[in-house]
Amino acid sequence: MKLIYTGKTKNVYAVEDGNYLLKFKDDVTGENGVFDPGANTVGLTIEGAGRAGLKLTKHFFEVIKEKGIPTHYIDANIEEATMKVKAATVFGKGLEVICRYRGVGSFLKRYGGYVTEGQPLDAFVEVTLKDDGRQDPPITVDALEMLGILSKAEYEIIKDLTRKIAAIVKEELEKKSIELYDIKFEFGRDNCSGEVLLIDEISGGNMRAYKDGKYIEPLLLERLMLA
Amino acid sequence: MKLIYTGKTKNVYAVEDGNYLLKFKDDVTGENGVFDPGANTVGLTIEGAGRAGLKLTKHFFEVIKEKGIPTHYIDANIEEATMKVKAATVFGKGLEVICRYRGVGSFLKRYGGYVTEGQPLDAFVEVTLKDDGRQDPPITVDALEMLGILSKAEYEIIKDLTRKIAAIVKEELEKKSIELYDIKFEFGRDNCSGEVLLIDEISGGNMRAYKDGKYIEPLLLERLMLA
Repeated sequence: MKLIYTGKTKNVYAVEDGNYLLKFKDDVTGENGVFDPGANTVGLTIEGAGRAGLKLTKHFFEVIKEKGIPTHYIDANIEEATMKVKAATVFGKGLEVICRYRGVGSFLKRYGGYVTEGQPLDAFVEVTLKDDGRQDPPITVDALEMLGILSKAEYEIIKDLTRKIAAIVKEELEKKSIELYDIKFEFGRDNCSGEVLLIDEISGGNMRAYKDGKYIEPLLLERLMLA
Repeated sequence: MKLIYTGKTKNVYAVEDGNYLLKFKDDVTGENGVFDPGANTVGLTIEGAGRAGLKLTKHFFEVIKEKGIPTHYIDANIEEATMKVKAATVFGKGLEVICRYRGVGSFLKRYGGYVTEGQPLDAFVEVTLKDDGRQDPPITVDALEMLGILSKAEYEIIKDLTRKIAAIVKEELEKKSIELYDIKFEFGRDNCSGEVLLIDEISGGNMRAYKDGKYIEPLLLERLMLA
């Protein structure tokens, strides 16, 4: 098993059978000890956060896979906090694809001249570059294509998958009377088939969820969802 | 004559005949006394800068109009540093539409993970919101439409006009062996017909121009172009 990537909240290993193994850490993103899914730094370490994130990820990936969405998910080992996935390669140096149901976070920061906090948005999809040093800049489909990061056809596939997956997660949350405000996904190309796959994780750290108008922290979200 | 808008480098007045009058000031954008077309603050005041900017604007608007591009330009009075234009309304609170032939400025700042300084770009068009407090954030066509700033059809018209106008300016500069790196335009809707028009000005302050690999300051550009 060979370490091929050290992430902020996960490490990625190449396994002998050609697949990858994701090892979930107890680190979560945030600033000054406060969790923030939009942050680019590890803000705090919470014992059990890795396993809790994996449990919710396993749940969502199994629901999503069942609905016929292509994902990298193979199986998960909660005890070891690991997830076996198909080997895939990110677009460029990695993209974040965000689906927004309400105007909060970086969207509000950028477009606060036109939106009010929490204003409903119609499953709005946008792409940002994973680039901590440049504060994950937003990027248009024209720029993605010009810079050779992805083609317009791939962009359309990703936009369509993002809306479908976000709708599935939203529906799952609604079963527990929780409202999804926004969620971010990562996609990659399957190293064997080239197919566009949903990769990475889907846990509390990827989304903003609210219950009775109050923000739900990732660990609480995981407890509420899997209760 | 009624003052209807006070800009950083121009004031706009409503005239009795229904048109607008733009009064060019000697203020130019920049920081700490250094000119920067990408800056959101007035960096310095140069005597004659307003008139010089108007002279070049008059030149470009006349060439552009001749090629059948719809603009707000009616005529100019160099002595008084004023330009008479059709009354038009900006999209939302104003947009900047940029055409890029080389990767410099805010494009390089955002996408420096994928481009090198000065790398050739294929007349790349992008839109930013005019919002000094939010550092003129870039925005996608999907967001422009969702926020009610412009329609997809208007976006396509603006993108097409931007490429055409930038190509005209580029050609004009090439006649003096000057290379256009990037240029920003503003567009509006004609208050009478609703037609999309090129508005504002086209002077040294709107573009980055280089000669023999050296950046040309706006006032020098205006002298070289009109010599």
